[in-house]
Amino acid sequence: MLFFSHCLGFVLDFVHFRYQYCKARSAFSAAVQLVCVVRPTPSVTHLPSRTPLSLHREVVPSAEDLSEKRLLACPCPGASCKWEGPLEAILPHLAASHHSVVRLRGESVVFLATNVHLPGSAGWVTVQSCLGHHFVLVLEKQVRQEGHQRFLAFVLLLGTSRQAQGFSYRLLLNGKRRRLSWEATPRGVAEGPASSSLSTDSLVFDTVMAQTFTNNGSLAIKVTISSS
Amino acid sequence: MLFFSHCLGFVLDFVHFRYQYCKARSAFSAAVQLVCVVRPTPSVTHLPSRTPLSLHREVVPSAEDLSEKRLLACPCPGASCKWEGPLEAILPHLAASHHSVVRLRGESVVFLATNVHLPGSAGWVTVQSCLGHHFVLVLEKQVRQEGHQRFLAFVLLLGTSRQAQGFSYRLLLNGKRRRLSWEATPRGVAEGPASSSLSTDSLVFDTVMAQTFTNNGSLAIKVTISSS
Repeated sequence: MLFFSHCLGFVLDFVHFRYQYCKARSAFSAAVQLVCVVRPTPSVTHLPSRTPLSLHREVVPSAEDLSEKRLLACPCPGASCKWEGPLEAILPHLAASHHSVVRLRGESVVFLATNVHLPGSAGWVTVQSCLGHHFVLVLEKQVRQEGHQRFLAFVLLLGTSRQAQGFSYRLLLNGKRRRLSWEATPRGVAEGPASSSLSTDSLVFDTVMAQTFTNNGSLAIKVTISSS
Repeated sequence: MLFFSHCLGFVLDFVHFRYQYCKARSAFSAAVQLVCVVRPTPSVTHLPSRTPLSLHREVVPSAEDLSEKRLLACPCPGASCKWEGPLEAILPHLAASHHSVVRLRGESVVFLATNVHLPGSAGWVTVQSCLGHHFVLVLEKQVRQEGHQRFLAFVLLLGTSRQAQGFSYRLLLNGKRRRLSWEATPRGVAEGPASSSLSTDSLVFDTVMAQTFTNNGSLAIKVTISSS
Protein backbone atom coordinates (compact mmCIF):
# COMPACT_ATOMS: atom_id res chain seq x y z
CA MET A 1 0.00 0.00 0.00
CA LEU A 2 2.84 2.35 0.98
CA PHE A 3 4.52 1.48 -2.33
CA PHE A 4 1.41 2.39 -4.34
CA SER A 5 0.91 5.67 -2.46
CA HIS A 6 4.56 6.56 -3.19
CA CYS A 7 4.05 5.71 -6.86
CA LEU A 8 0.88 7.80 -6.99
CA GLY A 9 2.69 10.74 -5.35
CA PHE A 10 5.50 10.45 -7.87
CA VAL A 11 3.09 10.39 -10.82
CA LEU A 12 1.16 13.38 -9.49
CA ASP A 13 4.42 15.30 -8.93
CA PHE A 14 5.53 14.43 -12.45
CA VAL A 15 2.25 15.59 -14.00
CA HIS A 16 2.29 18.79 -11.93
CA PHE A 17 5.88 19.71 -12.87
CA ARG A 18 5.31 18.72 -16.51
CA TYR A 19 2.32 21.07 -16.57
CA GLN A 20 4.37 23.87 -15.01
CA TYR A 21 7.19 23.15 -17.45
CA CYS A 22 4.84 23.52 -20.42
CA LYS A 23 3.30 26.69 -18.97
CA ALA A 24 6.74 28.21 -18.44
CA ARG A 25 7.84 27.31 -21.97
CA SER A 26 4.72 28.78 -23.49
CA ALA A 27 5.18 32.02 -21.52
CA PHE A 28 8.45 32.73 -23.29
CA SER A 29 9.72 32.61 -26.81
CA ALA A 30 10.57 29.42 -28.62
CA ALA A 31 14.23 30.43 -28.52
CA VAL A 32 14.46 29.29 -24.92
CA GLN A 33 15.96 25.84 -24.88
CA LEU A 34 15.74 24.82 -21.26
CA VAL A 35 13.27 25.06 -18.44
CA CYS A 36 14.50 24.14 -15.00
CA VAL A 37 12.06 23.39 -12.17
CA VAL A 38 13.83 24.67 -9.06
CA ARG A 39 12.69 23.72 -5.61
CA PRO A 40 13.71 25.73 -2.54
CA THR A 41 17.21 24.85 -1.39
CA PRO A 42 17.03 22.76 1.78
CA SER A 43 19.45 23.32 4.60
CA VAL A 44 20.20 19.61 5.05
CA THR A 45 21.21 17.89 1.87
CA HIS A 46 22.86 14.81 0.47
CA LEU A 47 24.62 13.71 -2.67
CA PRO A 48 22.93 14.37 -5.99
CA SER A 49 21.50 11.52 -7.98
CA ARG A 50 21.18 13.03 -11.45
CA THR A 51 22.95 16.23 -12.35
CA PRO A 52 26.44 16.24 -10.92
CA LEU A 53 28.29 19.54 -11.01
CA SER A 54 31.92 19.55 -11.90
CA LEU A 55 34.62 22.16 -11.83
CA HIS A 56 35.83 23.41 -15.17
CA ARG A 57 39.19 24.98 -15.55
CA GLU A 58 37.82 28.18 -17.02
CA VAL A 59 36.36 29.34 -13.70
CA VAL A 60 39.73 29.31 -11.92
CA PRO A 61 40.75 32.93 -11.37
CA SER A 62 43.76 34.38 -13.04
CA ALA A 63 46.97 34.77 -11.09
CA GLU A 64 46.44 38.53 -11.01
CA ASP A 65 43.37 38.29 -8.81
CA LEU A 66 45.06 37.78 -5.50
CA SER A 67 42.03 39.04 -3.64
CA GLU A 68 40.05 36.07 -4.90
CA LYS A 69 42.28 33.54 -3.15
CA ARG A 70 40.52 33.86 0.19
CA LEU A 71 37.89 31.47 1.52
CA LEU A 72 34.46 32.15 0.08
CA ALA A 73 31.03 31.38 1.53
CA CYS A 74 28.54 29.06 -0.13
CA PRO A 75 26.56 31.10 -2.69
CA CYS A 76 23.24 29.63 -1.55
CA PRO A 77 21.14 32.29 0.20
CA GLY A 78 20.46 32.22 3.91
CA ALA A 79 22.75 31.31 6.75
CA SER A 80 21.96 27.60 6.87
CA CYS A 81 25.09 26.45 5.04
CA LYS A 82 28.26 27.26 6.91
CA TRP A 83 30.59 25.96 4.24
CA GLU A 84 33.60 28.03 3.21
CA GLY A 85 36.20 27.22 0.64
CA PRO A 86 38.25 28.50 -2.28
CA LEU A 87 36.62 29.54 -5.53
CA GLU A 88 37.45 26.34 -7.34
CA ALA A 89 35.74 24.24 -4.65
CA ILE A 90 32.33 25.91 -4.93
CA LEU A 91 30.94 23.75 -7.73
CA PRO A 92 32.00 20.47 -6.07
CA HIS A 93 30.47 21.74 -2.82
CA LEU A 94 27.15 22.54 -4.53
CA ALA A 95 27.17 19.08 -6.10
CA ALA A 96 27.96 17.36 -2.84
CA SER A 97 25.84 19.29 -0.37
CA HIS A 98 22.97 20.91 -2.26
CA HIS A 99 21.26 18.21 -4.28
CA SER A 100 18.44 20.55 -5.31
CA VAL A 101 20.91 22.76 -7.20
CA VAL A 102 20.78 21.44 -10.75
CA ARG A 103 22.82 22.57 -13.71
CA LEU A 104 21.61 23.89 -17.05
CA ARG A 105 23.58 24.49 -20.20
CA GLY A 106 22.78 27.36 -22.52
CA GLU A 107 22.75 31.13 -22.68
CA SER A 108 18.98 31.39 -22.30
CA VAL A 109 17.06 29.27 -19.80
CA VAL A 110 13.89 29.46 -17.75
CA PHE A 111 14.32 29.23 -14.00
CA LEU A 112 11.05 27.94 -12.55
CA ALA A 113 10.99 28.50 -8.80
CA THR A 114 8.29 26.43 -7.10
CA ASN A 115 6.32 27.15 -3.94
CA VAL A 116 7.22 30.82 -3.81
CA HIS A 117 3.89 31.48 -2.11
CA LEU A 118 4.70 29.47 1.00
CA PRO A 119 5.37 31.59 4.11
CA GLY A 120 8.84 32.26 5.44
CA SER A 121 12.26 32.96 3.99
CA ALA A 122 13.47 30.71 1.21
CA GLY A 123 16.02 30.47 -1.56
CA TRP A 124 16.11 28.92 -5.01
CA VAL A 125 19.42 28.25 -6.70
CA THR A 126 20.59 26.73 -9.95
CA VAL A 127 23.77 26.77 -12.01
CA GLN A 128 23.80 27.93 -15.62
CA SER A 129 26.80 26.97 -17.74
CA CYS A 130 27.45 28.92 -20.90
CA LEU A 131 30.04 31.06 -22.66
CA GLY A 132 32.78 28.97 -21.06
CA HIS A 133 31.76 29.86 -17.51
CA HIS A 134 29.40 28.82 -14.73
CA PHE A 135 26.84 31.25 -13.35
CA VAL A 136 24.80 30.81 -10.17
CA LEU A 137 21.18 31.98 -10.50
CA VAL A 138 19.65 32.90 -7.17
CA LEU A 139 16.11 33.82 -6.16
CA GLU A 140 15.76 34.69 -2.51
CA LYS A 141 12.69 35.52 -0.47
CA GLN A 142 13.45 37.59 2.59
CA VAL A 143 11.02 38.20 5.45
CA ARG A 144 11.78 41.46 7.13
CA GLN A 145 10.26 43.48 9.95
CA GLU A 146 6.51 43.19 10.53
CA GLY A 147 6.20 40.42 7.98
CA HIS A 148 7.24 42.59 5.03
CA GLN A 149 8.59 40.30 2.32
CA ARG A 150 10.80 41.01 -0.63
CA PHE A 151 12.30 38.92 -3.39
CA LEU A 152 15.80 39.33 -4.79
CA ALA A 153 16.89 37.72 -8.04
CA PHE A 154 20.48 37.96 -9.22
CA VAL A 155 23.27 36.18 -11.06
CA LEU A 156 26.76 35.44 -9.76
CA LEU A 157 29.69 34.39 -11.88
CA LEU A 158 31.78 31.58 -10.48
CA GLY A 159 34.86 33.62 -11.19
CA THR A 160 36.51 36.88 -10.34
CA SER A 161 35.03 40.36 -10.31
CA ARG A 162 37.15 41.23 -13.31
CA GLN A 163 35.81 38.29 -15.30
CA ALA A 164 32.25 39.20 -14.31
CA GLN A 165 32.62 42.63 -15.94
CA GLY A 166 32.76 40.87 -19.30
CA PHE A 167 29.17 39.63 -19.03
CA SER A 168 25.66 40.94 -18.65
CA TYR A 169 22.45 39.15 -17.77
CA ARG A 170 18.76 39.76 -18.28
CA LEU A 171 15.95 38.49 -16.08
CA LEU A 172 12.48 38.49 -17.57
CA LEU A 173 9.18 37.87 -15.80
CA ASN A 174 6.28 37.45 -18.16
CA GLY A 175 2.63 37.67 -17.18
CA LYS A 176 -0.74 38.44 -18.67
CA ARG A 177 -0.22 41.82 -20.35
CA ARG A 178 2.62 42.52 -17.93
CA ARG A 179 6.34 42.13 -18.29
CA LEU A 180 9.18 42.97 -15.91
CA SER A 181 12.75 42.99 -17.15
CA TRP A 182 16.06 43.59 -15.37
CA GLU A 183 19.45 43.85 -17.02
CA ALA A 184 22.68 44.08 -15.07
CA THR A 185 26.23 42.82 -14.76
CA PRO A 186 26.74 39.64 -12.72
CA ARG A 187 28.93 39.84 -9.67
CA GLY A 188 31.95 37.68 -9.18
CA VAL A 189 31.14 35.17 -6.46
CA ALA A 190 34.16 36.42 -4.55
CA GLU A 191 32.30 39.66 -3.87
CA GLY A 192 30.14 37.70 -1.49
CA PRO A 193 26.71 36.14 -1.69
CA ALA A 194 25.36 38.28 1.16
CA SER A 195 22.20 39.36 -0.59
CA SER A 196 21.69 42.49 1.48
CA SER A 197 24.81 43.99 -0.02
CA LEU A 198 23.85 42.69 -3.44
CA SER A 199 20.55 44.48 -3.64
CA THR A 200 21.88 47.16 -5.98
CA ASP A 201 22.85 44.37 -8.37
CA SER A 202 19.59 42.49 -7.98
CA LEU A 203 16.10 42.65 -9.28
CA VAL A 204 14.16 43.46 -6.11
CA PHE A 205 10.38 43.06 -6.05
CA ASP A 206 7.67 42.70 -3.46
CA THR A 207 5.03 40.06 -2.79
CA VAL A 208 2.38 41.76 -4.93
CA MET A 209 4.74 41.85 -7.90
CA ALA A 210 5.66 38.18 -7.29
CA GLN A 211 1.97 37.23 -7.19
CA THR A 212 1.43 39.06 -10.48
CA PHE A 213 3.78 36.64 -12.22
CA THR A 214 3.20 33.50 -10.15
CA ASN A 215 1.29 30.63 -11.64
CA ASN A 216 0.16 27.83 -9.32
CA GLY A 217 2.79 28.86 -6.80
CA SER A 218 5.61 28.84 -9.34
CA LEU A 219 7.53 31.82 -10.61
CA ALA A 220 9.16 31.51 -14.05
CA ILE A 221 12.16 33.72 -14.71
CA LYS A 222 13.81 33.70 -18.10
CA VAL A 223 17.54 34.20 -17.66
CA THR A 224 19.69 35.26 -20.60
CA ILE A 225 23.44 35.70 -20.24
CA SER A 226 25.58 37.41 -22.83
CA SER A 227 29.11 38.63 -23.11
CA SER A 228 29.33 42.41 -23.06
CA MET B 1 19.69 93.29 -3.63
CA LEU B 2 16.61 91.11 -3.29
CA PHE B 3 16.09 91.41 -7.04
CA PHE B 4 19.63 90.19 -7.76
CA SER B 5 19.37 87.26 -5.35
CA HIS B 6 16.10 86.23 -7.07
CA CYS B 7 17.79 86.49 -10.47
CA LEU B 8 20.75 84.45 -9.27
CA GLY B 9 18.42 81.78 -7.88
CA PHE B 10 16.54 81.65 -11.16
CA VAL B 11 19.76 81.28 -13.17
CA LEU B 12 21.07 78.54 -10.87
CA ASP B 13 17.74 76.68 -11.12
CA PHE B 14 17.83 77.01 -14.88
CA VAL B 15 21.40 75.69 -15.11
CA HIS B 16 20.60 72.81 -12.73
CA PHE B 17 17.48 71.70 -14.64
CA ARG B 18 19.21 72.17 -17.99
CA TYR B 19 22.01 69.89 -16.74
CA GLN B 20 19.48 67.28 -15.56
CA TYR B 21 17.61 67.59 -18.86
CA CYS B 22 20.79 66.86 -20.83
CA LYS B 23 21.70 63.95 -18.53
CA ALA B 24 18.24 62.45 -18.94
CA ARG B 25 18.34 62.83 -22.73
CA SER B 26 21.75 61.21 -22.93
CA ALA B 27 20.59 58.26 -20.81
CA PHE B 28 18.05 57.27 -23.43
CA SER B 29 17.98 56.92 -27.16
CA ALA B 30 17.80 59.83 -29.55
CA ALA B 31 14.30 58.71 -30.50
CA VAL B 32 12.92 60.32 -27.35
CA GLN B 33 11.57 63.71 -28.27
CA LEU B 34 10.64 65.21 -24.94
CA VAL B 35 12.09 65.41 -21.47
CA CYS B 36 9.85 66.75 -18.75
CA VAL B 37 11.27 67.92 -15.41
CA VAL B 38 8.58 67.03 -12.89
CA ARG B 39 8.58 68.48 -9.40
CA PRO B 40 6.59 66.86 -6.59
CA THR B 41 2.93 67.83 -6.73
CA PRO B 42 2.17 70.31 -3.95
CA SER B 43 -1.04 70.09 -2.01
CA VAL B 44 -1.76 73.82 -2.28
CA THR B 45 -1.66 75.02 -5.83
CA HIS B 46 -2.68 77.84 -8.09
CA LEU B 47 -3.28 78.47 -11.73
CA PRO B 48 -0.59 77.41 -14.19
CA SER B 49 1.47 79.99 -15.97
CA ARG B 50 2.80 78.05 -18.95
CA THR B 51 1.28 74.74 -19.95
CA PRO B 52 -2.48 74.90 -19.69
CA LEU B 53 -4.27 71.58 -19.95
CA SER B 54 -7.40 71.43 -21.95
CA LEU B 55 -10.10 68.86 -22.42
CA HIS B 56 -10.19 67.14 -25.77
CA ARG B 57 -13.30 65.50 -27.01
CA GLU B 58 -11.63 62.14 -27.55
CA VAL B 59 -11.37 61.41 -23.81
CA VAL B 60 -15.11 61.62 -23.27
CA PRO B 61 -16.32 58.08 -22.56
CA SER B 62 -18.66 56.38 -24.91
CA ALA B 63 -22.33 56.25 -24.10
CA GLU B 64 -22.00 52.52 -23.36
CA ASP B 65 -19.80 53.07 -20.34
CA LEU B 66 -22.44 54.01 -17.84
CA SER B 67 -20.21 53.05 -14.93
CA GLU B 68 -17.82 55.86 -15.89
CA LYS B 69 -20.43 58.54 -15.30
CA ARG B 70 -19.90 58.68 -11.57
CA LEU B 71 -17.78 61.26 -9.77
CA LEU B 72 -14.07 60.44 -9.90
CA ALA B 73 -11.27 61.48 -7.55
CA CYS B 74 -8.33 63.60 -8.62
CA PRO B 75 -5.68 61.28 -10.12
CA CYS B 76 -2.86 62.95 -8.18
CA PRO B 77 -1.50 60.60 -5.51
CA GLY B 78 -2.04 61.22 -1.81
CA ALA B 79 -5.07 62.47 0.00
CA SER B 80 -4.28 66.18 -0.16
CA CYS B 81 -6.63 66.97 -3.04
CA LYS B 82 -10.26 66.35 -2.18
CA TRP B 83 -11.59 67.23 -5.63
CA GLU B 84 -14.15 64.97 -7.26
CA GLY B 85 -15.78 65.36 -10.61
CA PRO B 86 -16.80 63.67 -13.84
CA LEU B 87 -14.25 62.21 -16.22
CA GLU B 88 -14.37 65.12 -18.63
CA ALA B 89 -13.56 67.60 -15.84
CA ILE B 90 -10.28 65.98 -14.79
CA LEU B 91 -8.03 67.77 -17.26
CA PRO B 92 -9.47 71.22 -16.48
CA HIS B 93 -9.10 70.44 -12.78
CA LEU B 94 -5.42 69.48 -13.20
CA ALA B 95 -4.83 72.68 -15.16
CA ALA B 96 -6.60 74.84 -12.61
CA SER B 97 -5.44 73.30 -9.34
CA HIS B 98 -2.15 71.49 -9.95
CA HIS B 99 0.17 73.91 -11.66
CA SER B 100 3.12 71.50 -11.40
CA VAL B 101 1.33 69.02 -13.68
CA VAL B 102 2.61 69.86 -17.15
CA ARG B 103 1.60 68.29 -20.41
CA LEU B 104 3.77 66.55 -22.99
CA ARG B 105 2.89 65.47 -26.48
CA GLY B 106 4.34 62.32 -28.01
CA GLU B 107 4.31 58.57 -27.63
CA SER B 108 7.75 58.44 -26.04
CA VAL B 109 8.82 60.94 -23.38
CA VAL B 110 11.17 61.10 -20.41
CA PHE B 111 9.56 61.83 -17.08
CA LEU B 112 12.24 63.38 -14.85
CA ALA B 113 11.07 63.34 -11.22
CA THR B 114 13.14 65.68 -9.06
CA ASN B 115 13.98 65.43 -5.37
CA VAL B 116 12.99 61.79 -5.03
CA HIS B 117 15.60 61.44 -2.29
CA LEU B 118 13.89 63.84 0.10
CA PRO B 119 12.21 62.15 3.09
CA GLY B 120 8.48 61.59 3.32
CA SER B 121 5.69 60.63 0.97
CA ALA B 122 5.48 62.45 -2.33
CA GLY B 123 3.94 62.25 -5.78
CA TRP B 124 5.01 63.33 -9.26
CA VAL B 125 2.43 63.68 -11.99
CA THR B 126 2.40 64.72 -15.61
CA VAL B 127 0.03 64.33 -18.56
CA GLN B 128 1.14 62.68 -21.79
CA SER B 129 -1.01 63.29 -24.87
CA CYS B 130 -0.65 60.90 -27.77
CA LEU B 131 -2.60 58.50 -29.95
CA GLY B 132 -5.65 60.72 -29.61
CA HIS B 133 -5.85 60.35 -25.85
CA HIS B 134 -4.47 61.80 -22.63
CA PHE B 135 -2.55 59.66 -20.18
CA VAL B 136 -1.61 60.56 -16.61
CA LEU B 137 1.89 59.43 -15.60
CA VAL B 138 2.26 59.00 -11.86
CA LEU B 139 5.26 58.31 -9.66
CA GLU B 140 4.41 57.95 -6.00
CA LYS B 141 6.66 57.47 -3.00
CA GLN B 142 4.91 55.83 -0.09
CA VAL B 143 6.28 55.67 3.45
CA ARG B 144 4.95 52.65 5.23
CA GLN B 145 5.45 51.10 8.63
CA GLU B 146 8.83 51.57 10.33
CA GLY B 147 10.02 53.95 7.66
CA HIS B 148 9.89 51.37 4.87
CA GLN B 149 9.53 53.21 1.57
CA ARG B 150 8.37 52.06 -1.81
CA PHE B 151 7.87 53.73 -5.16
CA LEU B 152 5.01 53.05 -7.54
CA ALA B 153 5.04 54.17 -11.14
CA PHE B 154 2.01 53.71 -13.36
CA VAL B 155 -0.01 55.15 -16.21
CA LEU B 156 -3.70 56.00 -16.21
CA LEU B 157 -5.78 56.68 -19.29
CA LEU B 158 -8.15 59.61 -19.04
CA GLY B 159 -10.87 57.43 -20.42
CA THR B 160 -12.81 54.29 -19.71
CA SER B 161 -11.51 50.88 -18.71
CA ARG B 162 -12.58 49.56 -22.08
CA GLN B 163 -10.58 52.22 -23.92
CA ALA B 164 -7.55 51.52 -21.73
CA GLN B 165 -7.44 47.90 -22.91
CA GLY B 166 -6.46 49.17 -26.33
CA PHE B 167 -3.12 50.51 -25.11
CA SER B 168 0.05 49.34 -23.45
CA TYR B 169 2.84 51.30 -21.84
CA ARG B 170 6.49 50.71 -21.07
CA LEU B 171 8.48 52.34 -18.27
CA LEU B 172 12.25 52.21 -18.58
CA LEU B 173 14.82 53.15 -15.95
CA ASN B 174 18.33 53.29 -17.28
CA GLY B 175 21.47 53.29 -15.15
CA LYS B 176 25.11 52.41 -15.37
CA ARG B 177 25.09 48.82 -16.65
CA ARG B 178 21.60 48.39 -15.20
CA ARG B 179 18.20 48.65 -16.79
CA LEU B 180 14.74 48.06 -15.35
CA SER B 181 11.75 47.80 -17.64
CA TRP B 182 8.02 47.37 -16.95
CA GLU B 183 5.33 46.81 -19.55
CA ALA B 184 1.65 46.79 -18.71
CA THR B 185 -1.78 48.01 -19.72
CA PRO B 186 -2.85 51.41 -18.41
CA ARG B 187 -5.90 51.61 -16.22
CA GLY B 188 -8.86 53.74 -17.03
CA VAL B 189 -8.92 56.61 -14.56
CA ALA B 190 -12.43 55.56 -13.59
CA GLU B 191 -10.95 52.49 -11.90
CA GLY B 192 -9.60 54.84 -9.25
CA PRO B 193 -6.27 56.42 -8.58
CA ALA B 194 -5.92 54.77 -5.17
CA SER B 195 -2.41 53.51 -5.66
CA SER B 196 -2.63 50.72 -3.11
CA SER B 197 -5.16 48.94 -5.28
CA LEU B 198 -3.13 49.73 -8.37
CA SER B 199 0.02 47.98 -7.26
CA THR B 200 -0.56 44.99 -9.52
CA ASP B 201 -0.65 47.40 -12.45
CA SER B 202 2.34 49.40 -11.30
CA LEU B 203 6.06 49.14 -11.39
CA VAL B 204 6.88 48.80 -7.69
CA PHE B 205 10.44 49.30 -6.47
CA ASP B 206 12.19 50.07 -3.23
CA THR B 207 14.54 52.83 -2.12
CA VAL B 208 17.68 50.92 -3.05
CA MET B 209 16.40 50.39 -6.58
CA ALA B 210 15.43 54.06 -6.80
CA GLN B 211 18.91 55.10 -5.66
CA THR B 212 20.42 52.86 -8.31
CA PHE B 213 18.81 54.97 -11.02
CA THR B 214 18.77 58.36 -9.32
CA ASN B 215 21.13 61.05 -10.50
CA ASN B 216 21.53 64.15 -8.34
CA GLY B 217 18.19 63.44 -6.68
CA SER B 218 16.33 63.04 -9.97
CA LEU B 219 14.85 59.87 -11.37
CA ALA B 220 14.44 59.69 -15.15
CA ILE B 221 11.73 57.33 -16.43
CA LYS B 222 11.26 56.85 -20.13
CA VAL B 223 7.56 56.34 -20.85
CA THR B 224 6.44 54.84 -24.14
CA ILE B 225 2.78 54.36 -24.94
CA SER B 226 1.55 52.27 -27.83
CA SER B 227 -1.74 50.95 -29.06
CA SER B 228 -2.05 47.20 -28.58
